[in-house]
Amino acid sequence: MKMIRITRITRITRIKRTTGMIVAMALSMLLAMQAGAETGYELWMRYVPVQNQPLLNSYRLQINSIAVNTGSPTLRIVKNELISGLTGLLGKKIDTTGKTALNGILSAETYNPAGVSGKAGLKSLLEQTGEEGFVIATKTVNNKKHIIITGNTDIAVLYGTFHFLRLIQTQQNISSLQIISTPKMKLRMLNHWDNLNRTVERGYSGSSIWNWHTLPGYIDPRYVDYARANASIGINGTVLTNVNANATFLTPPYLQKVKALADAFRPYGIKVYLTARFSAPIEIGKLKTADPLDPQVQQWWNDKISEIYQVIPDFGGFVVKANSEGQPGPQDYKRTHADGANMLASAIAPHKGIIIWRAFVYSNENPVDRHKQAYDDFVPLDGKFNSNVMVQVKNGAIDFMPREPFHPLFGAMPKTPLMMEFQVTQEYLGQGTTLAFLAPLFKETLESDTYSKGKGSTVAKVIDGSVDQHALNGMAGVSNIGSDINWTGHPLSQANWYALGRLAWDHSLSSEKIAEEWLRMSFSNNAAFLSTMIPLMCNSRETVVRYMNPIGLHHIMGTSHHYGPAPWVSNLNRPEWNPVYYHKADSLGIGFDRTSKGSNALGQYAPEVRKLWEDINTCEEKNLLWFHHVPWTFKMKSGRNVWEELCYNYYTGAEKVKQMQASWKKMQPFVDPQRFDQITMLFNVQYEEAIWWRNACLLYFQTFSKMPIPSNYEKPDRSLDYYKSLRFPFAPGI
Amino acid sequence: MKMIRITRITRITRIKRTTGMIVAMALSMLLAMQAGAETGYELWMRYVPVQNQPLLNSYRLQINSIAVNTGSPTLRIVKNELISGLTGLLGKKIDTTGKTALNGILSAETYNPAGVSGKAGLKSLLEQTGEEGFVIATKTVNNKKHIIITGNTDIAVLYGTFHFLRLIQTQQNISSLQIISTPKMKLRMLNHWDNLNRTVERGYSGSSIWNWHTLPGYIDPRYVDYARANASIGINGTVLTNVNANATFLTPPYLQKVKALADAFRPYGIKVYLTARFSAPIEIGKLKTADPLDPQVQQWWNDKISEIYQVIPDFGGFVVKANSEGQPGPQDYKRTHADGANMLASAIAPHKGIIIWRAFVYSNENPVDRHKQAYDDFVPLDGKFNSNVMVQVKNGAIDFMPREPFHPLFGAMPKTPLMMEFQVTQEYLGQGTTLAFLAPLFKETLESDTYSKGKGSTVAKVIDGSVDQHALNGMAGVSNIGSDINWTGHPLSQANWYALGRLAWDHSLSSEKIAEEWLRMSFSNNAAFLSTMIPLMCNSRETVVRYMNPIGLHHIMGTSHHYGPAPWVSNLNRPEWNPVYYHKADSLGIGFDRTSKGSNALGQYAPEVRKLWEDINTCEEKNLLWFHHVPWTFKMKSGRNVWEELCYNYYTGAEKVKQMQASWKKMQPFVDPQRFDQITMLFNVQYEEAIWWRNACLLYFQTFSKMPIPSNYEKPDRSLDYYKSLRFPFAPGI
Repeated sequence: MKMIRITRITRITRIKRTTGMIVAMALSMLLAMQAGAETGYELWMRYVPVQNQPLLNSYRLQINSIAVNTGSPTLRIVKNELISGLTGLLGKKIDTTGKTALNGILSAETYNPAGVSGKAGLKSLLEQTGEEGFVIATKTVNNKKHIIITGNTDIAVLYGTFHFLRLIQTQQNISSLQIISTPKMKLRMLNHWDNLNRTVERGYSGSSIWNWHTLPGYIDPRYVDYARANASIGINGTVLTNVNANATFLTPPYLQKVKALADAFRPYGIKVYLTARFSAPIEIGKLKTADPLDPQVQQWWNDKISEIYQVIPDFGGFVVKANSEGQPGPQDYKRTHADGANMLASAIAPHKGIIIWRAFVYSNENPVDRHKQAYDDFVPLDGKFNSNVMVQVKNGAIDFMPREPFHPLFGAMPKTPLMMEFQVTQEYLGQGTTLAFLAPLFKETLESDTYSKGKGSTVAKVIDGSVDQHALNGMAGVSNIGSDINWTGHPLSQANWYALGRLAWDHSLSSEKIAEEWLRMSFSNNAAFLSTMIPLMCNSRETVVRYMNPIGLHHIMGTSHHYGPAPWVSNLNRPEWNPVYYHKADSLGIGFDRTSKGSNALGQYAPEVRKLWEDINTCEEKNLLWFHHVPWTFKMKSGRNVWEELCYNYYTGAEKVKQMQASWKKMQPFVDPQRFDQITMLFNVQYEEAIWWRNACLLYFQTFSKMPIPSNYEKPDRSLDYYKSLRFPFAPGI
Repeated sequence: MKMIRITRITRITRIKRTTGMIVAMALSMLLAMQAGAETGYELWMRYVPVQNQPLLNSYRLQINSIAVNTGSPTLRIVKNELISGLTGLLGKKIDTTGKTALNGILSAETYNPAGVSGKAGLKSLLEQTGEEGFVIATKTVNNKKHIIITGNTDIAVLYGTFHFLRLIQTQQNISSLQIISTPKMKLRMLNHWDNLNRTVERGYSGSSIWNWHTLPGYIDPRYVDYARANASIGINGTVLTNVNANATFLTPPYLQKVKALADAFRPYGIKVYLTARFSAPIEIGKLKTADPLDPQVQQWWNDKISEIYQVIPDFGGFVVKANSEGQPGPQDYKRTHADGANMLASAIAPHKGIIIWRAFVYSNENPVDRHKQAYDDFVPLDGKFNSNVMVQVKNGAIDFMPREPFHPLFGAMPKTPLMMEFQVTQEYLGQGTTLAFLAPLFKETLESDTYSKGKGSTVAKVIDGSVDQHALNGMAGVSNIGSDINWTGHPLSQANWYALGRLAWDHSLSSEKIAEEWLRMSFSNNAAFLSTMIPLMCNSRETVVRYMNPIGLHHIMGTSHHYGPAPWVSNLNRPEWNPVYYHKADSLGIGFDRTSKGSNALGQYAPEVRKLWEDINTCEEKNLLWFHHVPWTFKMKSGRNVWEELCYNYYTGAEKVKQMQASWKKMQPFVDPQRFDQITMLFNVQYEEAIWWRNACLLYFQTFSKMPIPSNYEKPDRSLDYYKSLRFPFAPGI
């Protein structure tokens, strides 16, 4: 399979066409493109010509020729990417001999003392870049001006290649480059919650892109395009299967299917991981138990893991969701999470694999505030996990809310490498029809200070290993990728996939920088476009917070599908599945008291954090109702009381969607018609949904506050009963 | 929505780019295309430049300018299609003023006495073409040479436009045209077996393209592309929903979603139809019964249908699967199918809608040969259906087998318009990984002689209404369309969608002609390519018959998913769901005796047909085991006995797949790399599956025949137990 992309290029020469033919074809393709054929499939790698003519001329002068040694599949990809990228961007045929030009050679090579990278003296720079980091430097070698892309491994060169192409895509100056870039985290992963039947849990962009039925014989070209897209943003691992796991994936026929994907991904530097169903020894091993201390169980996993590595020698490891939401786990046998994780870790250690054990656990038998349960379960286990175990922690303690204070586990398990789990798919942020650019959400968590080793112990530094000196470190995002032609359904949601990759590589990047890169590559380098769209993107998530979950409200979404508002639901089996559990609105006030007078979830944070949030007067208002039950009459900094502040936020949020609609309309000159129309329709839908959220929530909370909606706002035109009557039995993603 | 495609084109002029820019963009697009970017999304409308240079020159001379009055959405589509099509095909910018050229004007207009169509004297020709037929004629008008595309309606002009583009795509001479084309059938439909949750029953190309959740607010560009593709082959109706129906589709929110699709499809001449859940009055109407003779039930349907027409004024009507495979129906109330159909027909008649009532019925309480049950149920009802009811009959009496004798209902209900139901999706023909070009299957049924009004009363003439003078007539195909980028999964399966449309328009077209058109447009006009690929396509279904269901075997596929062989299955609840019911292999012989000594299903055919098939010596061998239980030692015309003939067919079938693989490899110079690789992989899979079929079936039947596989064939390398052990719990399409 890895040959496919290569043969595509080499075969160009085989297709014989006259010059007239080429011009004709080119014209027709151009017109087709102008006519609106941008489907979004190309993501941020559209490689359309640089539109700034002086810059284009300058690029053309500086890149006369490329030189790539194609000694490995990865380096062949490097070469092909440079050819297709530069051909598109520079609008000229790219010389690949590396010899013809006096000046302007672009050279991509894995560090070679005898090659240009060696002659250019780049060795010392490469001492900082590890296995995956790269250097891009302008150097004169043999009297010729070179741009050299290099690294210590082939994959590093591929990362550098995509970075270099990004410089041109975003119209940066390349005349004197000295870029050294090393990923801040080792594991940069996507988690696919994809099922055997191709449904995707919390997926809103069609079905799973993995067609398990036709694997391994048929390699959908999309698999390769997927790997390429991930490599372009530095993602180096993918968990193919849902954390709500199915043991069938561990059977021999399915391992062959996984192998086929691993083979397709390998040249792009991407390892495959699977989710392990803890009870697999019973379900497919025919054992009577899955007790992690049972020798037969241990042997079964040893054998199974050896079998996997025979098929996939560079298999990454397992992600495990255990004893959570009905999944089996070690606690079924009165063992701890560490017992379970270490059993798997011992079995996989000889093969250099790792176990990623999820901390997202809560139990309906436990009356304690759900916010506290992961901490209670896991902190006592700190130091008890094997060295090849990571504990994967969601950004917050509840569940991927539009806004969520950082998880108290960050900083609380210094002896254990914690992996970040973000959600790229927008389960709770409007799903497939909402623009919520998530970089600001990711950044907000990453920049939160845990104070675990004093001020500056940010979540980012906890998970990149620098606070507690962990060699294993990483960040994962629950994928928003599906079978829709544009991968993510909402064309602008591609930016969230992009942001996850970029932040996993470098969490110091700002949201604005990420938005800018993505917008330039995906749409346009036009300044007027960017000056509107960068803030529009970066403010979009805050807008969603305003009209869904303002001032610390959370988890008041519709039952099960989490689509739309349903703060009134109170009849579900498990108390913590009911929205009323979270908002606790009553005649006196609203919000969840997590202070020492309430659930004392705040007791799980460092004293500095606890103190800040414990005091209703110092707690940031954005988190107010998260930590406090606040009287309706409580005065906010704005001078409004809590009820008025809710009204203000809900109305302002909806209004801001309207403003996004209006701003977007003005972007028409800069955007291809197809995507312009798609996004226009989606903003219309989002506005309707914002009104729905606003009206439903305010009408409901008003039954407690007993206060009027301020008269400057238009009254809801539907009744609370109407909103309560809505049902979405076929909402996607369940 | 209907505006979208139009704005795409008009907006071209708004995008300002320099000439250098245009050349650069064109070159980059060209190189991208050469590099293998053919995803298949464009179907047979790729509009790549004509590669025959003299012909291209001649086309360019003959089409200097186009003139289209854009007075309706449909005519705007005509104009856009001509612009994008001719720009691509001719590789030049198309003048649209209609004035500049002295000669060579392409004019598309709905017949207009004062326009070129009138001046050219085309009125008389248009008297033959009805509402949908078109004329394409070369005429001199006002001293200028015109090619005139015209018809009595805008839609007719659109059909003519696609036909004209097809002439150029397939490199036909256009210098002196006089084409008159009128569809042989009024209703040319696709049936989508698509469910609310986006699964597709018997779908093998991803999920449903209908995203019910984001409708009506979001119109996926694919909906418009779908309508355009259908219009290009004359399809004018689509049943959006599965025949195993869900009443939810009839609720107000879903009718708004259906309306959004209807609006998108309307300019392309496509009406929407839904499936009616017979028990909907109970499920969503809260009635206690769905008895068709109950006045409340009748009123409920009257009201519901009026509601639908208020939302969708040109709604097509309902398709109903009743009292079949567990679906509710009038027999639940001891009423007949006619009672049920007429109740709906009366309610929909004032709105000019129709009811399509399926004859695919069989019951597990009925011990009679399943082959006979539809006939037994329906023939007594002939003449009892209202005039706006059609009865939709599958091509054969069992269920879309690889080969099936024509259904005995054809010709047996002269007073009732019968609609043909073919299956385009390959439920029983290898599903998503098999090339089975179905035009020969469709043709085989259509050309079968029912003898109902004497010799020449072919099935085609029964369903086109000419045998019994029915004004209502039509042909439907169960769609093979899904969310895969190339629509149909297997790139070559697009040809089956194409064939369905072309044959519904003109059933006299040969399979070879259809294959040729499709191959020329979808791949290449190269003569060497066509001379290999036309026969390869046309023989492919016969190959599938050979290695799956030779000499009249049928329905021996895997349980429920119908993937792969499982002739041994005998434990399912309903006798007629078990393969053993159909092949009846025993120590004496094999096959289903449907003669007068057996089930006498043959008694349902006209005497001429019955006589031919009743006699084991005159029955075509391809149907032998369909109608006869034949001793293992029976001598076939080949001189082989039945067992040897089975061996011959199974081995030859697999061998022919190998030959297709080899032939395809030689097509590499003519095919873009992406599709070449995809099809190569699929032929590899198909070969493995052919071996599986061959080995599994022969090893199983050998347990009855007790005869050896002839020694000239390689022995199966797996055991029967191995094949019996295979399970596919997550096979698609269930």
